[in-house]
Amino acid sequence: MRLSSKSLLALFGVGCICGLIGDHAHVASGTTRYLDVGGVPTIWGSPLFFPLTVGIATAAIGEIRVRLGPSRPGTLEEGLAGIASVMAIYLLTALLSDESTSTVTAFIACLAILVAVRFGDGRWSLALGAVAAVVGPIAEILQHHAGVFEYTSNVDGLADVAPWLVPLYFAFGVVASRLGGILESDA
Amino acid sequence: MRLSSKSLLALFGVGCICGLIGDHAHVASGTTRYLDVGGVPTIWGSPLFFPLTVGIATAAIGEIRVRLGPSRPGTLEEGLAGIASVMAIYLLTALLSDESTSTVTAFIACLAILVAVRFGDGRWSLALGAVAAVVGPIAEILQHHAGVFEYTSNVDGLADVAPWLVPLYFAFGVVASRLGGILESDA
Amino acid sequence: MRLSSKSLLALFGVGCICGLIGDHAHVASGTTRYLDVGGVPTIWGSPLFFPLTVGIATAAIGEIRVRLGPSRPGTLEEGLAGIASVMAIYLLTALLSDESTSTVTAFIACLAILVAVRFGDGRWSLALGAVAAVVGPIAEILQHHAGVFEYTSNVDGLADVAPWLVPLYFAFGVVASRLGGILESDA
Repeated sequence: MRLSSKSLLALFGVGCICGLIGDHAHVASGTTRYLDVGGVPTIWGSPLFFPLTVGIATAAIGEIRVRLGPSRPGTLEEGLAGIASVMAIYLLTALLSDESTSTVTAFIACLAILVAVRFGDGRWSLALGAVAAVVGPIAEILQHHAGVFEYTSNVDGLADVAPWLVPLYFAFGVVASRLGGILESDA
Repeated sequence: MRLSSKSLLALFGVGCICGLIGDHAHVASGTTRYLDVGGVPTIWGSPLFFPLTVGIATAAIGEIRVRLGPSRPGTLEEGLAGIASVMAIYLLTALLSDESTSTVTAFIACLAILVAVRFGDGRWSLALGAVAAVVGPIAEILQHHAGVFEYTSNVDGLADVAPWLVPLYFAFGVVASRLGGILESDA
Repeated sequence: MRLSSKSLLALFGVGCICGLIGDHAHVASGTTRYLDVGGVPTIWGSPLFFPLTVGIATAAIGEIRVRLGPSRPGTLEEGLAGIASVMAIYLLTALLSDESTSTVTAFIACLAILVAVRFGDGRWSLALGAVAAVVGPIAEILQHHAGVFEYTSNVDGLADVAPWLVPLYFAFGVVASRLGGILESDA
């Protein structure tokens, strides 16, 4: 591993906590509803595997980014701003779930562009954002079809999941990449 | 022309596309309703003249800005962030159309100030923002009185059009000015 | 006083005006309701003491900040962006008052973090933000218990006042500190 165990653990922890908060907001606002989580214990409304998956993905993207090529150094405050930006966008998708989904998706895409311009670290971070924007929604579509959860009826326009997952996961991938670079330089 | 044909075409295209997306959001959210567009063909709910006007205004402001005096160079990413910022504000006016219009107008004014501080390029860009903030709403008031469209009843407080058009057009004018400077320096 | 009378008056005026606008938005959206203001005259729905208190607090925090240690110089535009950011967050708490308060609180906390990273000026500004985040809500709780006003039922989760007052006052304290530093350096 290029990142220290401490850095990987920090990324994992950040991903777990942000995943829990965002998922709770989606459940509380009725954006999503869990149907059959296979008896897995839940924390704050989320089945255990959800925050764990987000945590692992965050650490994995950070590690992959620093392996792909030289990354831009940065401060922990810059990283904190990146985390707060993605978390805010995630929460907005819950707050805006009753609005026109096409409008919300365009709005989230604008915010994702602002995140990419502000926190992007060259082509590799954009590429990892793009990978997250494809893999994340596909993982959710598969879980939906396995009967794990469902999106509420007006936000299921992308093969039964929310179209704004694409820009949301993109912003997540860009910032997780940046966090990798920041933690490498901070160590 | 000070800007190349390619730059003017890019500004025109950006204005057309953003105008179409924003107008669609206004129509979809019931913020505005077209009444009599005089038989003009519509694209995605907008009569053809609307996106064309926004495109022409974007190119005109960019060209006028670079003629008025030296402009600050900038990257295309900076320009992209400016476009995403104005587009996000435009979409917010659709998403918030059911809220208190005075509160929404104050909120959009705060965001327009942030855009002016971030993307403004001296007094000329602010002046062009101010011109857009006057001419844009007047053009909409004239079209309203000609029976072309109407704003929904709780967002028609400025001579029958939305009061937040003033800060929205201001932000548009500031960013279109900045795009002119960026494209001049990028060429 | 370390700040000039002109600077203190400017801080006082900014605090009064922003307090009036934000309080009006809270009243207009039904977020808060004044019950018994003891016969004090009201301006725009706010009893006189409310904007005056915010004005005095803004000037006091600015003055205290520059006394606590060297501050970072800055432009008036930077200060304007800080004011617009806090005002926008304040207005958002009115616009989002019908949404899940835990989600709104987490969202406002993310924005407060972005404000702290962008406008923070070292540990003293964060400390003053923290003081505001404690003193502000306590002052509101005391006024609530004195029968002056009430928060609407779904946003009274923090001892009868809104939980998002904590990040809102924090952002206010950070920016008021920064304004002190800017006005000192501008003089």
